[in-house]
Amino acid sequence: MRSKAVVLLSGGLDSAVTLYFARSLGYQCFCLIFDYGQRHRREIQSAKRIAKSANCPFKILKISLPWKGSSLLDSHKRLPISNYRASMAIPSTYVPARNIIFLSFAISYAETIGAKTVFIGAHVQDYSGYPDCRPEFFRVFKKVISCGTKTGTGNNTIKINTPLIKKNKAEIIKLGDRLGVPFVLTWSCYQGGRRPCARCQSCRFRAKGFKEAGLKDPLQ
Amino acid sequence: MRSKAVVLLSGGLDSAVTLYFARSLGYQCFCLIFDYGQRHRREIQSAKRIAKSANCPFKILKISLPWKGSSLLDSHKRLPISNYRASMAIPSTYVPARNIIFLSFAISYAETIGAKTVFIGAHVQDYSGYPDCRPEFFRVFKKVISCGTKTGTGNNTIKINTPLIKKNKAEIIKLGDRLGVPFVLTWSCYQGGRRPCARCQSCRFRAKGFKEAGLKDPLQ
Repeated sequence: MRSKAVVLLSGGLDSAVTLYFARSLGYQCFCLIFDYGQRHRREIQSAKRIAKSANCPFKILKISLPWKGSSLLDSHKRLPISNYRASMAIPSTYVPARNIIFLSFAISYAETIGAKTVFIGAHVQDYSGYPDCRPEFFRVFKKVISCGTKTGTGNNTIKINTPLIKKNKAEIIKLGDRLGVPFVLTWSCYQGGRRPCARCQSCRFRAKGFKEAGLKDPLQ
Repeated sequence: MRSKAVVLLSGGLDSAVTLYFARSLGYQCFCLIFDYGQRHRREIQSAKRIAKSANCPFKILKISLPWKGSSLLDSHKRLPISNYRASMAIPSTYVPARNIIFLSFAISYAETIGAKTVFIGAHVQDYSGYPDCRPEFFRVFKKVISCGTKTGTGNNTIKINTPLIKKNKAEIIKLGDRLGVPFVLTWSCYQGGRRPCARCQSCRFRAKGFKEAGLKDPLQ
């Protein structure tokens, strides 16, 4: 029997590559998608299509946060449009404790279905800005799992697998290309429009990645 | 200006005492209540009444978990009715990763409103059974906060305060009595009935606590 894994799926490019990578390792993948009021709600549709493309079941977890605190949740706030981060400053798109929340649910889901691994597509370019994408954060979170869960109290603790953590966008895109990820289904733009805005930070990272990988973005 | 604190409020006796304790220390308390499909939904009403009795604002966060995995969420499962835990076994009312999830949201809320402290009413009798009530768990979770949040990257990290951690039920009840906690508003029973069932583990802990404290439970 194949080992079960929970894969956090956002609808973006990174998590799609992560899902296909986990599948290529032979895991039976269960996708977890969050509907948390993000302004780019289109990514939820993308996430569902990506899960289906990989023949993996998915659960959508709806969270109605009664607070905002991020330009990604609040359409009255401006999104950052600078090309690359000029400093180590945390961007306004930071959602307070988002990955802590997402991982918590992933662990809960994993415990419930008996999965021993959680995959998350965090990586180097993210953790230049988001504290909850740093390798150090994931290391510490593993301790929370081994202390704070039923499974963790045995030798059978749930592992967090971050296969993209040291890769840049071009490397992730190349990996996805090899794995046959349907990039056309992925959605990166922070704006919720019909087409990618090509101006927000996420669009620019994506464009640069495809360019450096020497590949064409099917969304362009 | 008073320091802000987020207080996790369940509607039970422990979190009510925690709220009144935090308030007695001079904190401006913001209560966070979870509606997570618990079968004893009555505790949500209790939590709201307790917050109002303490003149504290509250937020209710609704989580529709698309999985169960606990007798506390699944009315088809039997609740444990044994008097006291015979072993260190984790009871069926354990909700996978519940405190990890609750704390994650508390941290997100605290970051958003600029609170530097999160109060949670976990204690010694709980952590005999629930791994996510152990002091060790809270120690490790603090590291997650300092690694994984915006606030945590400065010297200004959010603290988790567990004032009841070493107290037993009788001591908690005595403390609540001194602080004027309206015990009549609290709800401990795991069953969702109109009156406490007096049979479930939670009812029995409560009855034993009041007896040992030499006080009368106003719900009896």
